[in-house]
Amino acid sequence: VLTENSYGKSSVRLTKVVRHGEAHELMELSADIVLTGDFSASYTDGDNSQIIATDSMKNTVYVLAKERDFKSIEEFAILLCGHFIETYRQVRGATVAIRQTPWERVVVHGKPHAHSFVEGGAERRICRAEISGGKLTLSGGVVDLGVLKTTGSEFCGFVQDRYRTLADTSDRIFATRVEAFWEYLSESADFDAACAGARTALLGTFADHHSLAVQQTLLAMGEAVLKNCPAIRKVRLIMPNQHRILANLKPFGLENRNEIFVPTSEPFGLISGVVERDSL
Amino acid sequence: VLTENSYGKSSVRLTKVVRHGEAHELMELSADIVLTGDFSASYTDGDNSQIIATDSMKNTVYVLAKERDFKSIEEFAILLCGHFIETYRQVRGATVAIRQTPWERVVVHGKPHAHSFVEGGAERRICRAEISGGKLTLSGGVVDLGVLKTTGSEFCGFVQDRYRTLADTSDRIFATRVEAFWEYLSESADFDAACAGARTALLGTFADHHSLAVQQTLLAMGEAVLKNCPAIRKVRLIMPNQHRILANLKPFGLENRNEIFVPTSEPFGLISGVVERDSL
Amino acid sequence: VLTENSYGKSSVRLTKVVRHGEAHELMELSADIVLTGDFSASYTDGDNSQIIATDSMKNTVYVLAKERDFKSIEEFAILLCGHFIETYRQVRGATVAIRQTPWERVVVHGKPHAHSFVEGGAERRICRAEISGGKLTLSGGVVDLGVLKTTGSEFCGFVQDRYRTLADTSDRIFATRVEAFWEYLSESADFDAACAGARTALLGTFADHHSLAVQQTLLAMGEAVLKNCPAIRKVRLIMPNQHRILANLKPFGLENRNEIFVPTSEPFGLISGVVERDSL
Amino acid sequence: VLTENSYGKSSVRLTKVVRHGEAHELMELSADIVLTGDFSASYTDGDNSQIIATDSMKNTVYVLAKERDFKSIEEFAILLCGHFIETYRQVRGATVAIRQTPWERVVVHGKPHAHSFVEGGAERRICRAEISGGKLTLSGGVVDLGVLKTTGSEFCGFVQDRYRTLADTSDRIFATRVEAFWEYLSESADFDAACAGARTALLGTFADHHSLAVQQTLLAMGEAVLKNCPAIRKVRLIMPNQHRILANLKPFGLENRNEIFVPTSEPFGLISGVVERDSL
Repeated sequence: VLTENSYGKSSVRLTKVVRHGEAHELMELSADIVLTGDFSASYTDGDNSQIIATDSMKNTVYVLAKERDFKSIEEFAILLCGHFIETYRQVRGATVAIRQTPWERVVVHGKPHAHSFVEGGAERRICRAEISGGKLTLSGGVVDLGVLKTTGSEFCGFVQDRYRTLADTSDRIFATRVEAFWEYLSESADFDAACAGARTALLGTFADHHSLAVQQTLLAMGEAVLKNCPAIRKVRLIMPNQHRILANLKPFGLENRNEIFVPTSEPFGLISGVVERDSL
Repeated sequence: VLTENSYGKSSVRLTKVVRHGEAHELMELSADIVLTGDFSASYTDGDNSQIIATDSMKNTVYVLAKERDFKSIEEFAILLCGHFIETYRQVRGATVAIRQTPWERVVVHGKPHAHSFVEGGAERRICRAEISGGKLTLSGGVVDLGVLKTTGSEFCGFVQDRYRTLADTSDRIFATRVEAFWEYLSESADFDAACAGARTALLGTFADHHSLAVQQTLLAMGEAVLKNCPAIRKVRLIMPNQHRILANLKPFGLENRNEIFVPTSEPFGLISGVVERDSL
Repeated sequence: VLTENSYGKSSVRLTKVVRHGEAHELMELSADIVLTGDFSASYTDGDNSQIIATDSMKNTVYVLAKERDFKSIEEFAILLCGHFIETYRQVRGATVAIRQTPWERVVVHGKPHAHSFVEGGAERRICRAEISGGKLTLSGGVVDLGVLKTTGSEFCGFVQDRYRTLADTSDRIFATRVEAFWEYLSESADFDAACAGARTALLGTFADHHSLAVQQTLLAMGEAVLKNCPAIRKVRLIMPNQHRILANLKPFGLENRNEIFVPTSEPFGLISGVVERDSL
Repeated sequence: VLTENSYGKSSVRLTKVVRHGEAHELMELSADIVLTGDFSASYTDGDNSQIIATDSMKNTVYVLAKERDFKSIEEFAILLCGHFIETYRQVRGATVAIRQTPWERVVVHGKPHAHSFVEGGAERRICRAEISGGKLTLSGGVVDLGVLKTTGSEFCGFVQDRYRTLADTSDRIFATRVEAFWEYLSESADFDAACAGARTALLGTFADHHSLAVQQTLLAMGEAVLKNCPAIRKVRLIMPNQHRILANLKPFGLENRNEIFVPTSEPFGLISGVVERDSL
């Protein structure tokens, strides 16, 4: 028997241009839509009378993008989510996840250009609106935020047993690509400010924190996000440990004083944690 | 406050060769390990006394691969999972997910070669063992199993409203890359037989089923897996609809009788469902 | 001053279905088209009167796919290349490179299905037709053909100096992903037979050759292709050395008799060579 | 017969830290090394006496990174290239290509941090040193420099024939990911200044140029690079046309005044050209 089902449209890409005279605003994103509800007849009998075609979901993204005003991907995700719930009786739950492409204005002769943009960093701003049981849960986040510190990181005193070959170290490189997912307290926050505040907290804490473990720095970074961003209720951090291994230069008669490292892609440590406000 | 935490080692890659005289057996895989337990002192105080280094987890994969016999990735995942639970008092939960690289013997002059292998299809066999609360949950699966049928697929009678532009069609291409994740009834099944049986059921049903909706075919495929594989308790199927769009050749004075299509990567429909045995 | 220019359309994807009653044939491919010729006015003055829009090139792929018969990607590449040269006076040179998606019939109850297909291995068949100076050069090839042998591979006696730390070995794993590009002697060969013959020669030689160096095996494989395929004039082989590093198990009191290896993605050796028929 | 051969090590990754007291400098890169020379005995007889192991090449990268000072990837590529030519009699040609990971200092409370870095944009700085026939050719470049302008781009008056369906447009989005490869006039230029100058020229020209064709803008960008960077002799530009297609909103009773676009990955136009100084 069919015990769960859902369907939707993934990777609906959109470029929206808003023209204020000469000055253009640009938003570019990719949206994933998933619906749950009364769709079982399609599975059991091929009866599609309750099915909203995923092609129609795609059209909906373009129509709402045209008809509605929104300043952030969070606002657009809420709009889309609400639309599906309100428009179709058979839809019980809707999830809209959005990933934004970062475009920054080209600076020409010291001035931001009116209509030309350059792609920003590797990091991506994301969000997710979910309506389920009549309740909206709204999350934001940043992924692929690459950071590296060349000192200020130790790793000592961990379990010593048959399987350990790694030595204690009091000075190592600490590199990671932060994934941060946070839940907003309300659906009417200043999302751009919250994202900027979270990013500042993540970077500043990573830079200044003297790390005894990736775990310890992760918690400090999560606490800083909550402290810096009143609009955020809790934050999940996922931080791969992108090892830089000290090159062994002894065979060549050289001493390696934390100068020459080999970056490796795999295997990698993966540390995660969730930090929530105390009062909750 | 820290409300959840876990850590582990990802992408631990292993090649194991078992030599039976001239004939060699080859297994190649990548393992992801995640532990939960009493690790909060590392997060709060940088006290690593309960922390098993992720580097030690990597070593463990190689030591157990050498010391133990196993015939399938499922058996190896169970071994690893049990090891972490049994060896470390502070470990409460362990998850080991494995992805296998498919190597097949090269056939030379009609005979399978003793020690030379060629990489198999794009599909990947995967599994996941999770021990939590003293209970083992064991899953297997296949991902990236690409299939396409050039006819025998319809899509009609779906919701007609402002957002619909797609016409009904009684004959379209149906292409997908199946992801199937199933839960085993026991930890001592013949996993190779179960996987082979599931694959046969998925392919045969996809090929023969006259499809009125991707949803309907998905359910039929899930039912066939349960029917064909007594060792499997339930199966989750995730099937993207990898659209092949009929090329419009009218501007060139040509009629396109379902001959010329444009494959597209995005956006794509995404259909999913879980099928379980009735008696459960 | 502008000293070279060219332009074209890349990644034009096509699915072609040919219906012989119940039995359908399927060809799926991606084509890259590049034209050279008298296009400089577009660069210097924005005068596009000699420019064939890349959108029109895309349309051409679909129109010719409908109007013409072809049995292989090589034949289609020749057709397309010739079309651009013959249709437009301003086109001096044309290159069409094609990559085919490997679809194999699903076997149901022991019989190949009439219209359902499963995606083949990671390897890809490719080709390239180039007309320049009125002369056609036609190449075929295979990329991403992954092979691995667990023994029958040595590497000894290489340069000993300050920079060497690698020991001689008389038994190692040899793994690679073969890229083979060959030039056909004529544009009217049986291309499917040539490709199948080349693949058989590559796999059989890799399997049976006792390797003293990747270089030596590469040459043997290239010679086998020429011997097995009269339609091929010369072949370029590019073979990464996808190292499997023997895991050091001594710290755990274990001896590793070529059983446990660590596959690595990077860095990798890269060996290449071109083998041509002697008489040419 | 073997008519060409070469071999080397690819994707040798390096992190180098230079410590000036508290302030650390960071350079991270990946290098590809290819050697040509007197290596045929390895191919024909498995005689490796002239073969420098690719593992030794990897070691060489780490030894030279430790022993030598260099301020840019160009200087390091020259060092490495020269090393192989000078050290080994049997080496006739050497090519070293380097790709740099962009790390920028984290700014904390308005000040650049002494030892913490954040990953820069998607764009990558690359270079290539080649010694062949005793002569060094040195190139630099940037790849994946994503830019987009929302207006100031036309495409009109191109060839009208059976295969054209695209209408003339006087206002479209122009988006590309610039690849620029330039040749330096000498091996002792200020490479950081040249790269910065080229980037400024590329961005400024893209932003300000009123485009009648991608081809025209490409030439203007190339000319600007040469004008702005005396150290550069010639530049090759490769610019994909990353189409943003105007969404058709008429079925929904809406007029789309260049507001809502669909970004597409494929197919894409690909325009290229080489611009050289006149006097050469």
